[in-house]
Amino acid sequence: MDLRPNETEANDRDLGFGSEVAARSQRRFINPDGSFNVERHGLGWRANLSLYHQLISMSWLRFVGLVVALYLLINAVFALAYVACGAQALAGAISGPLAARLLQAFFFSVQTFSTVGYGGVEPASLAANIVMTVESVTGLLSVALVTGLVFARFSHPVADIVFSRHGIVAPYRGITAFEFRIANSRRNQIVDLQARVILATLDPERPGKRIFRQLHLERDKVSFFPLSWTVVHPIDDDSPLAGLAPTDLERMEAEFLILLSGFDETFSQIVHTRSSYKAHEMRWNVKFSSMFESTPEDRSVAMDISRIHELEEVETPAASAS
Amino acid sequence: MDLRPNETEANDRDLGFGSEVAARSQRRFINPDGSFNVERHGLGWRANLSLYHQLISMSWLRFVGLVVALYLLINAVFALAYVACGAQALAGAISGPLAARLLQAFFFSVQTFSTVGYGGVEPASLAANIVMTVESVTGLLSVALVTGLVFARFSHPVADIVFSRHGIVAPYRGITAFEFRIANSRRNQIVDLQARVILATLDPERPGKRIFRQLHLERDKVSFFPLSWTVVHPIDDDSPLAGLAPTDLERMEAEFLILLSGFDETFSQIVHTRSSYKAHEMRWNVKFSSMFESTPEDRSVAMDISRIHELEEVETPAASAS
Amino acid sequence: MDLRPNETEANDRDLGFGSEVAARSQRRFINPDGSFNVERHGLGWRANLSLYHQLISMSWLRFVGLVVALYLLINAVFALAYVACGAQALAGAISGPLAARLLQAFFFSVQTFSTVGYGGVEPASLAANIVMTVESVTGLLSVALVTGLVFARFSHPVADIVFSRHGIVAPYRGITAFEFRIANSRRNQIVDLQARVILATLDPERPGKRIFRQLHLERDKVSFFPLSWTVVHPIDDDSPLAGLAPTDLERMEAEFLILLSGFDETFSQIVHTRSSYKAHEMRWNVKFSSMFESTPEDRSVAMDISRIHELEEVETPAASAS
Amino acid sequence: MDLRPNETEANDRDLGFGSEVAARSQRRFINPDGSFNVERHGLGWRANLSLYHQLISMSWLRFVGLVVALYLLINAVFALAYVACGAQALAGAISGPLAARLLQAFFFSVQTFSTVGYGGVEPASLAANIVMTVESVTGLLSVALVTGLVFARFSHPVADIVFSRHGIVAPYRGITAFEFRIANSRRNQIVDLQARVILATLDPERPGKRIFRQLHLERDKVSFFPLSWTVVHPIDDDSPLAGLAPTDLERMEAEFLILLSGFDETFSQIVHTRSSYKAHEMRWNVKFSSMFESTPEDRSVAMDISRIHELEEVETPAASAS
Repeated sequence: MDLRPNETEANDRDLGFGSEVAARSQRRFINPDGSFNVERHGLGWRANLSLYHQLISMSWLRFVGLVVALYLLINAVFALAYVACGAQALAGAISGPLAARLLQAFFFSVQTFSTVGYGGVEPASLAANIVMTVESVTGLLSVALVTGLVFARFSHPVADIVFSRHGIVAPYRGITAFEFRIANSRRNQIVDLQARVILATLDPERPGKRIFRQLHLERDKVSFFPLSWTVVHPIDDDSPLAGLAPTDLERMEAEFLILLSGFDETFSQIVHTRSSYKAHEMRWNVKFSSMFESTPEDRSVAMDISRIHELEEVETPAASAS
Repeated sequence: MDLRPNETEANDRDLGFGSEVAARSQRRFINPDGSFNVERHGLGWRANLSLYHQLISMSWLRFVGLVVALYLLINAVFALAYVACGAQALAGAISGPLAARLLQAFFFSVQTFSTVGYGGVEPASLAANIVMTVESVTGLLSVALVTGLVFARFSHPVADIVFSRHGIVAPYRGITAFEFRIANSRRNQIVDLQARVILATLDPERPGKRIFRQLHLERDKVSFFPLSWTVVHPIDDDSPLAGLAPTDLERMEAEFLILLSGFDETFSQIVHTRSSYKAHEMRWNVKFSSMFESTPEDRSVAMDISRIHELEEVETPAASAS
Repeated sequence: MDLRPNETEANDRDLGFGSEVAARSQRRFINPDGSFNVERHGLGWRANLSLYHQLISMSWLRFVGLVVALYLLINAVFALAYVACGAQALAGAISGPLAARLLQAFFFSVQTFSTVGYGGVEPASLAANIVMTVESVTGLLSVALVTGLVFARFSHPVADIVFSRHGIVAPYRGITAFEFRIANSRRNQIVDLQARVILATLDPERPGKRIFRQLHLERDKVSFFPLSWTVVHPIDDDSPLAGLAPTDLERMEAEFLILLSGFDETFSQIVHTRSSYKAHEMRWNVKFSSMFESTPEDRSVAMDISRIHELEEVETPAASAS
Repeated sequence: MDLRPNETEANDRDLGFGSEVAARSQRRFINPDGSFNVERHGLGWRANLSLYHQLISMSWLRFVGLVVALYLLINAVFALAYVACGAQALAGAISGPLAARLLQAFFFSVQTFSTVGYGGVEPASLAANIVMTVESVTGLLSVALVTGLVFARFSHPVADIVFSRHGIVAPYRGITAFEFRIANSRRNQIVDLQARVILATLDPERPGKRIFRQLHLERDKVSFFPLSWTVVHPIDDDSPLAGLAPTDLERMEAEFLILLSGFDETFSQIVHTRSSYKAHEMRWNVKFSSMFESTPEDRSVAMDISRIHELEEVETPAASAS
C-alpha cells in the first residue's frame, strides 16, 4: 500500500473501489465485521456458490445442521433405491405397506452408510448388493469430506480482535492525535502485529471522486500483543487531519480504514483483520480510560477487556490554554 | 527477480529458459492457465508420476472416479483371494458356479472393506480370517489416505484471478501506459496482492537469444483486492517499450509475463498466479470500460466481473494532437 | 518492534503492559514457559473457554483421557435414550432389572457409536431406530472432530528451544557483553532463526513507570541452528547496560525479554518462542563452558545439550587489570 | 546470515559449530542429503525419540509396515484380554485348546478394532463387554492418529532439487566464477527461489579454527524455477576465492555450504533444501553442458534433467592467453 500523503489520484483505483461509484455511495467501505461493502455480479453460478468458503465460514451450528440434513437426505435416496430393487431385495425385512418398507429401507440404509451393519437386514439380490456397494463407497467419501471440512474449520484462524467503539482525537504531546484501541479477546497469542490506517475522503478538488491517504503512525508494529494496543496517528502539520474540525470530517464523508495483520501462535498462521471508523463514530477531546486492574495479590498484570470502549473527558487544548 | 532494465545477458539463464532453445520456439513461455510451456525429460518414472501433485490437481469428478475405480479393484482382488481360500472359507455363503461365488465374495469383501460387516457371511477358515485381517487393515489405511487427500485438496488454495483478455496501451497522464486488468472471481478475500511484469523479447544484438526485462509499475502492491485492479506500466523514456509500435512487438516476439502473489484469507495461505500477453493479444489506443454498476438502492459498490474484458476506443494521441 | 535506545515513553504502552500497573508488579512479564504474566477479565465465557486452544495445547495424556471420558458419557446418554424407548425397543436384549437393561443398552450403544454393530442386539421399534440414526450421525461427526483435533495437534509446531539457566555478563573483545545461550533440543531443523532482546526496567525519571529498550545484538539472525547459539549484546557506550553493576539491575527491576522466531522444517511453519531473565538470574564475570565433545571416531561434531547451563569463572576485568 | 567477507571470528560460533571441534573433524558439515553432520547428546529419551519427526520422515513402505505391525500387536493384546475373560466371555466362539481360542479371539478382536463386527462372535460377559468398549475407543483414536499422520506426511513438502554432482570454476566474463547447477526434478512449481552460498575454511591465522564467509552471487533469487538454474559467484578481487588454486582449497579444507529456499506451489508452503561441495568435489576449467533438447515439433522448451551433471572442457584462461 505504502501510500504517501500526496498520492491521491492513483490510489483511487488501486484500492479496487471505482471512484465514481464509490463517491455515489454514502455507505462505508469496510463493514464492522471486516468484510468489504461490495457486490460482485457477472460471476458464474459456480463462483457465486463458493461452497468451500461458505462451509468454512458458517457457524458450527449451521455446519452440523447441514451435515445432519445431508445425512438424512442421502439415506432417504438410498432407501428409495432399495425399495426400487423389489420386495425380495432385503433379507430379514418384513413385508408391508410401502411406507413401512420405505422406513425399514431407510434404517437399513443408515446402518449401511454409517457402516454399523447389524446384519438383521441384509441385501439379498444382485441389485440390492450393487446399491449397497455404491452406498458404502459414498459413505467412505462422505466421512472423508466431513473430516476434511471439520479440520479445515479448525485450522482456519480467526483473529478475534476487539476494536474500541470509537476512534478519538485526544491530546498528545502538546498536539493532538487520532487514536483507537484494540485488545485481543482470545487466549491465542498474536505476535508481530502490524497496523495500517488509511483515510478515505471526498476529493475537494474533483467532485464525485475519493482520495485515500495512509496515515503515519507513531508505531506501526508491536512484537507481542498480550493485552491492548492504542494505535496513535499524531496530527502534526503533515497530517491530512491537520486543522480539521469534527464537522469537516462529516462533510468530507471521512472513513478511517484499519488493516491489521499478525501471527497467531495457536494456529501458526498469519491472520488479517479489518475495521473502520466513520466520522460519526469519532469522539473529540476525550481519552481512553485505563483497562488495568489492581489485584489484591498483585500477582500479575490484569486487564478488563470489557472496558475497552470507556472514554474520559479531557480539557480541550483551547480550554486548558485559557 | 529485481531485474533492472539494463540487465540483459544474465537474466536469460536465470529465468530457467535456455536462451538458444527459447529463441527457437515461437510459442509462449507461460500458458494461459499459468503453467510453464516446458517439457522435462530424464526424470525417473517416479518423478514423472508425481502422484501427489496429480491427485491434488485433478478435477473432483476425476478424483471421485479414481477412488471408486480403486475401491472396485481392491474388492475384486480380495474377492479372488476369498474364493482361492476354498469352498468352506466363508460361512453363510451359498455354493454355486465360480461366477456366482466370485460375486458373493465380492459383496462380502465390500462389507468387510467398508467395515459394514452385516455378518450374514463370515470368514470360517484360518485362511479366510487372515485375508479378512489383511483387508481390514487395508481398509483402515485406505480411509486414512482418501481422507488425507480430500483435505489436502480442500486446503490447496487456488487463486481464481481473472485477467483481461487483452493487455492494452492506453493514454496515461500525457504519455501512454501498458495496462492490464485483473479481478477476483471468488468470494475469497485476497490481501497484500503484489504484481510483477517481465517483458521477454528477442535480443536485437544477439540473434537467437532472448532478453528479459522487469517493467516498472506505477504501483506494484495493493493492500486489499475486493474488486478489480488495473496494473499500469507507464511508458516513459526509461521504459523498454518507449517508441515501439505494434509491429515492433510482433517482430520482437514480445511476451509480457505476469506474476501475481497475495495472501488468501479463506485458505490463510500465500497464493501465486501467472499469466502472459503475447504481442497479438495487445490492443492499442483503447481503455478499459468501467465495471461498476449503479444500483437503485445504492447500498454498496457493485461490479460486473463479466465486463472485465470490455474496451473503449480512445482518440489516439496523434489524432487528438491534430 | 524496532525500538531505538532513546525511545522510552511510547514503548511503554506499545508493549501492551499498562505502565502504572506494570511497575506495581514485582513479578516478571514473561514466565519461564514463554507465556505472558497477564490476566484478562471481562471476556465472555465463550472467549474464556478458548476450547480449541486448550484442546490443541493440553498434554496427550489429558487429551486421550478427555476423549475417553466423552466417549463414555455420550454412550451413557444414548443408553438412557434406548432404555426410555421401552422394553421392546431392542431385539435380542434380555429383559431384567433396570440396571442390567441400562448396562446392556450401554454396550449396544458402544457397538452403534463405534459402528462395530455385531447385530446380536438390534433396534426393533421406530423410536429405537430413530435414536440409532441420531447416534450414527453423532458418531460420524465425533470421529471427524477427533481426527481433526489429532491432526491439528500433530501439525501445531512447538519449538523446543532450551535457554541457559542464567544470562551472563562476560568479557568480550576488550569490553563485556550480555550473553545467553540457546540449543535446539529436538531433531527438528530450525532455520533462519532470529533473536530480539528487550530490556525492561523502572524508569528512573518517572517513578512508577517502566521503560523498554531493544538491545543491539552482535548478530540477530542465523541461517541454520543445528547445535547451539550464544546470543551476544556487546555492552559498549551506547548500551543501556553501560556502567551498571549487578545491584543496579536489581534496583531497576530489570528483565531481559527474549523473543525468538524461526522456520521449523519438520512442521514447515514459522515458530515463535519467548523467555526472560530477571536480575537475580544473571551471573557476572563468568563464561559459558564448551558443550562440544571429543568423540574417539571423530566422525561428526558432537554436543552435550545437558551442559548448556554450565558456566566457568573468568578473571574479572578489574582483577586482570591489577 | 548476511555475512560480510571480513566477518570471521564471530561467524564461527554463530553457525552453531564449535570452532575447536569443527576444525578437529575432517568430515563435512552438511551431508549430501542436506542433513547436518552433527550429534547431540544429553537429551532426554523423549527428545531423542522425536516420534513425530520420524513418523513424518520415514519411507511410505516403512510407515505402512509400522502401521500393520502395530495393528497386529494391538489385536494380539486384546486377544489375550478376551481369553483372560474366561471361556464364556464370547458367545458364538467354539471351545478348544488355548491356541485355538487365542486365534479365535484374535480374529474377533480384528473384527472389533476395525469396526467390521460381523456378529458371529459377540461379547457375552460384562468383562468381555468392557474389553470391547476399550477396544472400540482405541480403534477410534488409532484411526484418527493414522489419518492425521497420513495427511501430515502428504502435506510435508519435500523440495526435490537436484544439485550438479560437481561445483565448478568456469570462465566468466573475462574472469572466472564458482558455479553449480540445480534443477527441479518434480512437477511441483517452485517460485521465488533464493540461494545462499557460504564458504567454510580453516582459518590461516588461528590454527584449529574455522571461518565462514558468505559468497556474493551474481543473482541470489529467481522469480520462477521451471527448469534449471546455474548459481554463479564471480571470483573477482573481493572474492575469498581470488587467487586460489585447487590445492589451496584442499589444504584449507574448504566446503561450499549451499542453502536454498523457495515457495512450493503444490504444497503452498516454503521449502528449504541444503547441500555442500567439498574441495575434492570441485572441477576446474570446465563448463556445464546445455541441458536443452531440440524437439522436432518445436512445441515447447524441453530439458533433459539427467544431463545436469554433464561438464565440457574449456581452454584454461592461461592456455587461451598463450
